[in-house]
Amino acid sequence: MTKVLIIGGGGMVGQKLVHQLLKSNLTTGAPLDITLFDIAFPSTSPPSIKHVIGNLGDPAEIQKIATQHPDIIYHLAAIVSGEAEADFDKGWQVNMFTMWTLLEAIRAQKQESGRTYKPKIVFTSSIAVFGGPFPNKIDDEFLSAPQTSYGAQKATCELILSDYSRKGFVDGISLRLPTICVRPGKPNLAASGFFSGIIREPLNGHKAYLPVADTVRHWHASPRAGANFLIHAATLDTALLENRRALNLPGVSCTVAEQIEALRKAAGQSVVDLIVPRADEAVAKIVDGWPQNFVPKRALALGFKAEANFDEIIATYLEDDLPTLRSQKN
Amino acid sequence: MTKVLIIGGGGMVGQKLVHQLLKSNLTTGAPLDITLFDIAFPSTSPPSIKHVIGNLGDPAEIQKIATQHPDIIYHLAAIVSGEAEADFDKGWQVNMFTMWTLLEAIRAQKQESGRTYKPKIVFTSSIAVFGGPFPNKIDDEFLSAPQTSYGAQKATCELILSDYSRKGFVDGISLRLPTICVRPGKPNLAASGFFSGIIREPLNGHKAYLPVADTVRHWHASPRAGANFLIHAATLDTALLENRRALNLPGVSCTVAEQIEALRKAAGQSVVDLIVPRADEAVAKIVDGWPQNFVPKRALALGFKAEANFDEIIATYLEDDLPTLRSQKN
Repeated sequence: MTKVLIIGGGGMVGQKLVHQLLKSNLTTGAPLDITLFDIAFPSTSPPSIKHVIGNLGDPAEIQKIATQHPDIIYHLAAIVSGEAEADFDKGWQVNMFTMWTLLEAIRAQKQESGRTYKPKIVFTSSIAVFGGPFPNKIDDEFLSAPQTSYGAQKATCELILSDYSRKGFVDGISLRLPTICVRPGKPNLAASGFFSGIIREPLNGHKAYLPVADTVRHWHASPRAGANFLIHAATLDTALLENRRALNLPGVSCTVAEQIEALRKAAGQSVVDLIVPRADEAVAKIVDGWPQNFVPKRALALGFKAEANFDEIIATYLEDDLPTLRSQKN
Repeated sequence: MTKVLIIGGGGMVGQKLVHQLLKSNLTTGAPLDITLFDIAFPSTSPPSIKHVIGNLGDPAEIQKIATQHPDIIYHLAAIVSGEAEADFDKGWQVNMFTMWTLLEAIRAQKQESGRTYKPKIVFTSSIAVFGGPFPNKIDDEFLSAPQTSYGAQKATCELILSDYSRKGFVDGISLRLPTICVRPGKPNLAASGFFSGIIREPLNGHKAYLPVADTVRHWHASPRAGANFLIHAATLDTALLENRRALNLPGVSCTVAEQIEALRKAAGQSVVDLIVPRADEAVAKIVDGWPQNFVPKRALALGFKAEANFDEIIATYLEDDLPTLRSQKN
């Protein structure tokens, strides 16, 4: 039995992950004992697994998590970029100090219980750890110079997780996720939200505002690809990382215009007409500091896979999250 | 009057800095009101300036520092690399959380006092933020992947200081100092200590142990160059940094064999004969993860200067720290 804990399991990526885990398991094949931890859960969260409602701001709750000795801990919980930029204190507390408290709680467990407890920790970092000016394509050795608090918090967690891992307290890996697109469900406060909104809302018959120029290029992967990254990371031999435990992941680089063109191919002009340009300087400024394209050689060599183009990303959304529309199109 | 606070002012670099400041001032020319903060001071510390004895582990003392609204804060205090590797808790507490507490105290000041208080902060980071495998020469865009706790702590501070600066709470700059060589005075616990020891001890007529092979290449700058980096950084317009506030500084790349050859030229074979090879695997392992050579284009363009070769570094030691020997040689 492999004990899996998903911190932030109520969020979109956490839910995608748990559904995928229930379908495909891990490559080890051992039966999974899955626990989700979050402040709230959607009604669609699988009832067969444990749900723990708690507040990550409370160190006691994090310590309690550690006493249960999960074998694999997914740490997905975060304040999104827009909110972390608006609320400096909350951003650092949630996005950085939660990681610190978790790692300290695990280390204390090892000392207290007297037995070896060294969980695998899979942390969702972000391409927001990078800041411009950028090369055409970012390689695996490009510096992390974040230009948002969110990015700085993620980069800080990477460093801390890496040092705890190097010292043998945990076995960590940080996945610098591309922007997850197309996000299902409601818009969130992420500055990157519109990349999904301009696809999802029109496909659902709603208007969507586009806050930036359609020449903006960005780096995407579907929620399904995101869940698969997380599953792959859980059983990856981290010795292969050679002490560089933060990975740039594969994704699709395309402009907003290319996203829209893919939407047109998939759903027609009338759907595209629901996209309404409306400039938002604050969003444009944040997005302007984000990377656009990568050469993720290491992650590809380690077996991480994403979509090949934005058409596939839309197809994934139609298959996984919009079965009604899919059946209309079939 | 410019109020200058030097945290860690009792250390070797802090002392070099204060002596240099008293000699050359800052380029602004304003008279300086200098305060040193540390747990202890050498007897040679200039009596004309304020000395505050305190413990950085006590947040109340850091908060008190902030209430005095220094214009320029040098944050030089740190547990050295060997000690940070041996004492995980102490390393993170002193090397990372002191920075956090200091920045929070400054931010609170701004809110409490109701007036704008945005000090310049000059932080001594280190080339230990880098980890191998390395290119032949590390450029300004190479990733920070530290392989010691000390390096991880310094890199974390860089990220935090950078984000506080971006948000306008402080005006920070992180200087990734080369290994400071030749360190005067007694050996310390830094794993890099022998790079100085093999020069300093023989020049003072003492034996020195060499724990690594003489083919080891490393990146050095003299204490005088270090003090000048700090002085230059204090008045540098940080807008020129374009939100990349951590700088690789110039230095001298040479092998241990080249260091020894420079010593031979300066002081003769009998002095070189005092170097005794004695392998130390722990030191060799730490040093093996350190960078060897740089192309510090940005720092050079911004006016930072170091020595041209190791002969000059030895000459600086003879001039600044070994006047007796110098007069013998003259």
